[in-house]
Formats: sequence, structure tokens, C-alpha cells
Amino acid sequence: MQINLAIDAMGGDLGPRTNVSGALLALLHDPLLSITLVGNKEQLTNLLLQHSLSRDFTSRIHILASDDAIGMDEAPASVLRNRKNSSMHLAIKLVAQGQCQGVVSGGNTGALMLISRHYLGMLAGIERPAISTAIPTYQGRSYLLDLGANINCQPEHLLQFALMGSVMVSRVEGKAKPSVALLNVGHEAIKGNSLVKSAASLISQHPCLNYAGYIEGDKIFNGDVDLVVCDGFTGNIALKTSEGLARYLSGQIQTLFHKNWYSRLVGLMARPLLHQLKQQMDPVRYNGGSFLGLQGCVVKSHGNADAQGFSFAVMRAAIEARQQLAAHLQVAMQQRVFSQQKS
Amino acid sequence: MQINLAIDAMGGDLGPRTNVSGALLALLHDPLLSITLVGNKEQLTNLLLQHSLSRDFTSRIHILASDDAIGMDEAPASVLRNRKNSSMHLAIKLVAQGQCQGVVSGGNTGALMLISRHYLGMLAGIERPAISTAIPTYQGRSYLLDLGANINCQPEHLLQFALMGSVMVSRVEGKAKPSVALLNVGHEAIKGNSLVKSAASLISQHPCLNYAGYIEGDKIFNGDVDLVVCDGFTGNIALKTSEGLARYLSGQIQTLFHKNWYSRLVGLMARPLLHQLKQQMDPVRYNGGSFLGLQGCVVKSHGNADAQGFSFAVMRAAIEARQQLAAHLQVAMQQRVFSQQKS
Repeated sequence: MQINLAIDAMGGDLGPRTNVSGALLALLHDPLLSITLVGNKEQLTNLLLQHSLSRDFTSRIHILASDDAIGMDEAPASVLRNRKNSSMHLAIKLVAQGQCQGVVSGGNTGALMLISRHYLGMLAGIERPAISTAIPTYQGRSYLLDLGANINCQPEHLLQFALMGSVMVSRVEGKAKPSVALLNVGHEAIKGNSLVKSAASLISQHPCLNYAGYIEGDKIFNGDVDLVVCDGFTGNIALKTSEGLARYLSGQIQTLFHKNWYSRLVGLMARPLLHQLKQQMDPVRYNGGSFLGLQGCVVKSHGNADAQGFSFAVMRAAIEARQQLAAHLQVAMQQRVFSQQKS
Repeated sequence: MQINLAIDAMGGDLGPRTNVSGALLALLHDPLLSITLVGNKEQLTNLLLQHSLSRDFTSRIHILASDDAIGMDEAPASVLRNRKNSSMHLAIKLVAQGQCQGVVSGGNTGALMLISRHYLGMLAGIERPAISTAIPTYQGRSYLLDLGANINCQPEHLLQFALMGSVMVSRVEGKAKPSVALLNVGHEAIKGNSLVKSAASLISQHPCLNYAGYIEGDKIFNGDVDLVVCDGFTGNIALKTSEGLARYLSGQIQTLFHKNWYSRLVGLMARPLLHQLKQQMDPVRYNGGSFLGLQGCVVKSHGNADAQGFSFAVMRAAIEARQQLAAHLQVAMQQRVFSQQKS
């Protein structure tokens, strides 16, 4: 299915060069994808010229000019009000106006969330988007949410995350009844804080959910469950701690293979393997945080993702847009509200 | 300084063989250390005989017989009441009676905490021990607490953790004014939940603390601060997620170096390096969770730590016992209570 994604080409720590290269990688990978790059027209045109693209490629690339880029540390509320011609605003508006089926940005997360809510609106009963990402496991990948959008959660929020996450996994991974676990400090029923215990009671009783009980932090990577649900504070700490550790260990490997002449020699021979390893350890490998709960497809790329990382985020948006995830979430949440009203 | 540590030889997933080997490694490393192994006398004697120890060694090893061992999943409250002759009970009593200066156990964490509180008592103003462990960083090591003892925290608890942790780091690492950060979802003042924000206000205003602001999960391993404070729920998730990721990546490396004949060859050459790497990635490398806030030294070894891991926990207990950490914590907490009453 043909789709067109809006790319906030000015977002992220590494700027338009990385975003453009990443978007081109996604185009290479997906022949039915078109993109609209939003940003400084001259800069983007020059970057595209450097790639000497074929006509097939250029026909799938559009540019929407914007001379304003939002900084990573600007206050979201002020950005929402005052920067209506910024690349982020214009990129999201393309989705709101139906010209694009999704948007990808590596920019300011708070601003992206606020502007997306403003132009796209939320699904009934959802206050703010939950951020979800894929994590690598022994068995492929699982999904984790919320990753920081909802810092102060009630049990009902965790139920919403479980419902939205289940719909997302079933659409994106094609699993009929994805298993859902709650992240907790132990697997026994008596463990955990009051939030987790109340959420467990809501989730376990919900007819649409395949509840698998509590999961501890060290079991996330086993891949025994499809979806791990937690409040945004906990999820943010879990994900970022993992990112930090992966970077630390990656650095340790580098140091180890540069220690003396023998390790340098082995390091030289092991270079292709170490390259593979680095890719596997790299947090951007599964780059792309989906904003669930919006009436539209918005994917946040990691602020310092490289071109390959950015391409993963674009491909994630392509999958979600093709699967019409937002529409399916809307139906699922409406059915839920309906069934609650009946009972 | 000569010290004698009580070892719950029956605790942990791997049983007395691992604990005895670990304790012997610690004796080898520390010539002024003696141990009292508490557990099945026949089993322990046989295990010691297998090591063909010199007289110097045997003179530093005592056995206290106990024919009851507490299971990893037993209910702590029932264990406290009904299993008074278990190895864990008797080992902790040795500390309470002054015969040992500290105790190490790899057994049931909840039971260890409850029995320790019962026999040793808490410091004034502390309700339950906070668990702290060292974590590897680019610059050496930092400390993280609480790791799961205190699931439902008030801001005052986080202040207690900061105070106890600061005293611990200054004694154990010899740092005059250790820097303390609060684990949070962002470094800006507006970020975080109400618990973290209120705790920040308490910690930043405390005259004895060197407050360094908020720290995000991915910065923990940078080692820019000496101590990272969080509630027990968050700390448990952060630590266990890190353990799980380290195990996962360790497995990926194994797989990578066994993929084909070339990678197996490189793997063979890289074996000594990979061994070092595995050790660095191993969570037991910094094994030993200190229970802070008790009137005595109690160190919890990871349930599935190997002999080397267990030896790290014993050596940690030896440092804390020699530094008379519990006594110093008592003084520090009393001074604090006093200064609060004055104001």
C-alpha cells in the first residue's frame, strides 16, 4: 500500500543531514513509501543533491519549506503557541490535513506530544499519548509502554496502556491475543505498590486482554510476554538505564580490544563480528517510540539516533500507518467504553 | 583489623558448595578475616575437606551447626516466627550477640530483612533497611539505593537513603563529601513525579548532603555522581533490568562467536578477552547488597551468585564491618534527629 510520511527534517540532535540519510534508507527499503521532508528548503535540496538519486527516488520525495526549527530544550507550551511555522508544526499538520499518513520526528519529545495532541486530537477516554517501543529479546522482540509520557498514573491508565499496546502488537506483529505483563518488583501476587496491584486486578479481569501476570526487570529480555506495561516514570527509568548500560558495555568492549598488541590483533580479526555486536547492542536498533492514543500516527525517533536509527523510526511509522493503527485503536477504545457503559 | 563474619552457608540458589567456595576465596584475599559457617555440620565439614586447606586457613574457619535451611520462596513472617534454629536465624544471632561483626547470606531477601530487624534492631528514625549496591561506571563505581526494600516511599525516606548512602560511601570509599543525585525522568527541575520533587527540596536543603540534582537512567553508568537515590520500586526495576540486559548481551556475544567457522576461530583466539568481558558484564561482579539502617552489618549476596560473586559479598561485609559502618550511621542519624529537633 502506497503511503506518504511527513518527516520533521530539522528535529533531533544530529540535524537534517542524518534525518535525510535515514529517510532515504527507508525509501530504499520500502518501494511503496513516499516522504515529505519538512524544513529549510535550500539545505534539504543540497543534501538530496549530494546523494545523486535516481528518478524513481526523487519522484517519491517532496519538500515542504519551513524556516523555523524547534530546539531540543524549548518549553513545549510556548512552542505550541508561538512556533506555528516550525518544521514540527507543519509536519504534524500534514497528517491532520490528510496529506500524510504519519509523521516522524527526532525533536523535542514534549513539544511533539503537545503539538500532536493539538492538531490530531486524542482517542475518546485517553488524556495523553503513551509512548511505546520495541525491545530486543531472545525470541525476537517485545514491546514496553509507557516510556515517560505519563509520569503520574492511576490504575486505569495502566489498563489503557495494556489495551492500546495489545491492539498495537496484534496489528503490527500479527499476533491474535498478545500476552500482557505488568512490570513489578516480584512475580508473586503480594509484591508491588498499590498502583501495580490495582492495575493487575483491572487488567486480569478485562475480557479483551491476555494477562500474563507480573514480570520482573531481569525477565523483560527473555521475550516470554509480548507486551510489558508500566507507568511512565518506571518505563523511562527502565529504558534509559538499559540504554546507558548498553553504551557502557559497548565502550568496555572497545577498550578491551585495544588493550595490547594481542587484543588489537584479535580485535582486527573480530571487526566484522564486533560491528554486528555493536549494532545489536545499540539502543537505536529498535529506534522509534510510537505515540499511542492519538488520532493519527506519530513516531518519535531517538534524539541522537544515527541515519540507520532514523530509518528504523520511519519504517515503524510506515508499518503503523499501513496497518491504520490509530483507527483500530479508536474502534477498540470505543468498544471498551461501550462495554463499560453497558455493565 | 581482625574480624569474624557469620556466613549463612545454606542460603542462595546454588547451596552450600558455592557459599563455602566463595567464603574461602574471601579468606584467601583477606588474611585478617575469620568466618563462622552456619549450616549442616556434616555437609560443611565434607565440603571443607575437599579443599585440602592449610592450618592457617582452618584456624580461621568455624562451624556452627544448624539443620534447618530457609527456602527462597517461604513467607518471611512465618520464617521469623517458626524457624529459630535455621542457618539464617543463627547466623544473624551471632552478630546480635557480638560474636561476629557482620553476616552474609544469599538466601530469601524478605526473611533476611525481617530476621535482621528482629535481632539487630533499626537505627532511630529508620523503619526498614534500605538496600544499596555498587554499580560499575566509566570512572570506577557508584552506589544505588534503595533497591527494593521500600516499595512505597515518602520524600522523607529518600532523604534518609541519601543520608545513609552518603555516610556509607564516605566510609567505604573514603570520599569526604560524596555527591548525591536523585534518579528521575529528566534533569530539568520541572521533571518528575511529586515524590522526586519533594525529595529534591529536602535533600538540596540538607547541610550534610552534597546534592548534585536529578540524574537520568542512562547517566547512571557515567559515574559523575557517587550515589544515586530512588524509591525501592524504581531501584529494583533499574537494577534488575540492567541485570537482564547484561545477561542478554552476554548471550548474544556467545552466539555471535559460534556462528560459523570463522567466528569460532576468532572466538577461540579472543577467549581470554571474552572471559574478561563476561566478568565485566556479569551482574555478580559488584555482588553484595548492603542493608543500611540496621544496628549491625548485613550483606545480601545475589541468590544465584557463583563462588566469586559470593566472595565479593563477603569482602563487602568485611569492609563495612571494619569501617564500623552501622555505628557511624547511628551517630549520623542521631545528629540529624538532634539538629531537626533544635530547629
